[in-house]
Amino acid sequence: MNASEFRRRGKEMVDYVANYMEGIEGRQVYPDVEPGYLRPLIPAAAPQEPDTFEDIINDVEKIIMPGAASPACTELETVMMDWLGKMLELPKAFLNEKAGEGGGVIQGSASEATLVALLAARTKVIHRLQAASPELTQAAIMEKLVAYSSDQAHSSVERAGLIGGVKLKAIPSDGNFAMRASALQEALERDKADGLIPFFMVATLGTTTCCSFDNLLEVGPICNKEDMWLHVDAAYAGSAFICPEFRHLLNGVEFADSFNFNPHKWLLVNFDCSAMWVKKRTDLTGAFRLDPTYLKHSHQDSGLITDYRHWQIPLGRRFRSLKMWFVFRMYGVKGLQAYIRKHVQLSHEFESLVRQDPRFEICVEVILGLVCFRLKGSNKVNEALLQRINSAKKIHLVPCHLRDKFVLRFAICSRTVESAHVQRAWEHIKELAADVLRAERE
Amino acid sequence: MNASEFRRRGKEMVDYVANYMEGIEGRQVYPDVEPGYLRPLIPAAAPQEPDTFEDIINDVEKIIMPGAASPACTELETVMMDWLGKMLELPKAFLNEKAGEGGGVIQGSASEATLVALLAARTKVIHRLQAASPELTQAAIMEKLVAYSSDQAHSSVERAGLIGGVKLKAIPSDGNFAMRASALQEALERDKADGLIPFFMVATLGTTTCCSFDNLLEVGPICNKEDMWLHVDAAYAGSAFICPEFRHLLNGVEFADSFNFNPHKWLLVNFDCSAMWVKKRTDLTGAFRLDPTYLKHSHQDSGLITDYRHWQIPLGRRFRSLKMWFVFRMYGVKGLQAYIRKHVQLSHEFESLVRQDPRFEICVEVILGLVCFRLKGSNKVNEALLQRINSAKKIHLVPCHLRDKFVLRFAICSRTVESAHVQRAWEHIKELAADVLRAERE
Repeated sequence: MNASEFRRRGKEMVDYVANYMEGIEGRQVYPDVEPGYLRPLIPAAAPQEPDTFEDIINDVEKIIMPGAASPACTELETVMMDWLGKMLELPKAFLNEKAGEGGGVIQGSASEATLVALLAARTKVIHRLQAASPELTQAAIMEKLVAYSSDQAHSSVERAGLIGGVKLKAIPSDGNFAMRASALQEALERDKADGLIPFFMVATLGTTTCCSFDNLLEVGPICNKEDMWLHVDAAYAGSAFICPEFRHLLNGVEFADSFNFNPHKWLLVNFDCSAMWVKKRTDLTGAFRLDPTYLKHSHQDSGLITDYRHWQIPLGRRFRSLKMWFVFRMYGVKGLQAYIRKHVQLSHEFESLVRQDPRFEICVEVILGLVCFRLKGSNKVNEALLQRINSAKKIHLVPCHLRDKFVLRFAICSRTVESAHVQRAWEHIKELAADVLRAERE
Repeated sequence: MNASEFRRRGKEMVDYVANYMEGIEGRQVYPDVEPGYLRPLIPAAAPQEPDTFEDIINDVEKIIMPGAASPACTELETVMMDWLGKMLELPKAFLNEKAGEGGGVIQGSASEATLVALLAARTKVIHRLQAASPELTQAAIMEKLVAYSSDQAHSSVERAGLIGGVKLKAIPSDGNFAMRASALQEALERDKADGLIPFFMVATLGTTTCCSFDNLLEVGPICNKEDMWLHVDAAYAGSAFICPEFRHLLNGVEFADSFNFNPHKWLLVNFDCSAMWVKKRTDLTGAFRLDPTYLKHSHQDSGLITDYRHWQIPLGRRFRSLKMWFVFRMYGVKGLQAYIRKHVQLSHEFESLVRQDPRFEICVEVILGLVCFRLKGSNKVNEALLQRINSAKKIHLVPCHLRDKFVLRFAICSRTVESAHVQRAWEHIKELAADVLRAERE
């Protein structure tokens, strides 16, 4: 939607809200619809081609408003998570439709998804061990629990371990910054020999530092064999899996118990919207379920409805699935795929500019929209370059450390980025690099 | 703001956003401002009388836009939490200004605030005990930790205990559904004799079930003496404390370590916005602090800035303080006080209607906007009445259990509610009650 259509549609929406407020006394306080009303009114999958804005707004009036805040908020979320799961070709076990055991939920952030998965895994292993040995206390079990991620995993994984009160160990990644079977096996054997109980693994697809990918096809079967919960965190990279040419990066998700990525990062859905799926809903709700009278309702034991409050840390919820519904329909799957492809193409354009300049090196294979690069030479010179780039305030780069190297990260992430921006950014970086190298020689 | 002004202002905002998008290439990618830039540009307290919308929008352009997303988002939040703290006459120890040790943060929900407080308390007690006895493991300590709340506390407190992996015990409330010193003392002595370690208390001001108030002036000093973290949850009632005549209900907050209420419940700020204050910021951040390279920044050890990511469960944040800034200025403190007073007056109006009808009884003293009432008689007849009320869909009531009694809850909570609505609702309830009583006699 360009700015001029945004002006028109935005103003129509303002009137829509004002009309609603003015006419609110004519509306019923409670909807007439029955649980499950929404799914039959909506296609089973996202459209390939864009829908018109009129069509979407008409559907809001026809499909959402009669369902009021509840159950429309819950039911649209369930269907949108199925739509998105199908866009990614997630295994059917993660979908809610056809009364499967799985399903999706919108969390606020990948941090929360990781924490919720860890808590579910913790509850599950405690129940399993106490069923076998009823004399074991929760604390005695928790003392021995150990979770894993690669040494490249996001800091939120370590944080989830802190909050959950369990040990978290970092598995050394390989030369491509990926977790592999051998390093994991080694850690598992050592820890089991020490009397610890491995119960949870976070594998990352597209690490924050350098967009590396843990080897799910190696790691997944080990987790299954060891009865460890496997959570796959693809916070950034997940959006790319809607393109068939990138879907192979998700291979191995069939071994996972839960999967998460952030449509708010790279799928044009405004912050916050973090998409999480589980294979077995009851594993999640088992960690949190409590039912006081003031939260009871007549449908809760029917199996017909989803109580998302048992799927998350907060109790209250916002109607975030509306954002997904609008974006998926305004762009169509093809429009979203084109958006991802353009970003990946631009990052490769930047990569090839860097490779043509012998003063620079590419530090990690460029797979999606992130280019990790640096001046050949010391960390000091690269820190100086970063400092000049960020002080000039024309572009902004966030660095990382890869092993002992200080690395610059060029991320393609704006909705409106074009080749001209990439070219201009590179000219700017080259100029500043020349300044830095000159200053170093002097 | 009435609907016609909303139409005008809403459309101006649409143009503001569109202009921003169209002109974005002319803007700097990183702000020029220095940490701490915002506070001197904003008054030290909320205005008593309303500001005009023009004034507020001009300030957005002048004060917020030059500070971009960061640091404006963080700094406005810190100042708004000070404004709100002052509106409540919170003890100065909870404020951030003048480089105190305390401060406020916006959480998504009271559930998260309770959990964050419990995790901070857990970390603090573990550190304290390990400092005294380094041989103690975290698990050995956690096994003995025990948290408390009244038996009327919200289910999210029990949930925080589940997530935090610690015992939570319910203290029996008194005849007014309040937690008192004697019941707490009894529990503490019994638990300490059993070798447990009391470390955390959630006192509720305005319980969900019946808006009862734990006796903070009794409970607070005990928590301080026992070195227990006292968290005060006033999720609903907190908004009323901006009125001097209700402020006494908050007396005793000076004994608390953390305090929380939800402006999104009753202070006209849209969901979500849960306000939490702590007396000692480092107690919160100590539970969560982790600093990977990609989240480091040049100001982080300066003490000048607040890293809210260490104050909460998620990592990412939204710019929720803008909602507070707009609401506080559009209404002024006096406007917000008038809003609270009107609701309380309407609930007393409903109460007096109920009291005039000998078939009904009031179940708990009406203090704020909630009236707990029922037909004198069996639970069955009250369940039947509730069922008729909610099936008619003219009003909607959420029930509760008080001890063994099934109770109806009439809550004044709409922005546009008037005496006429209350009168109409009562006529409607009386009619349905007559039907129920007639059906019972037949």
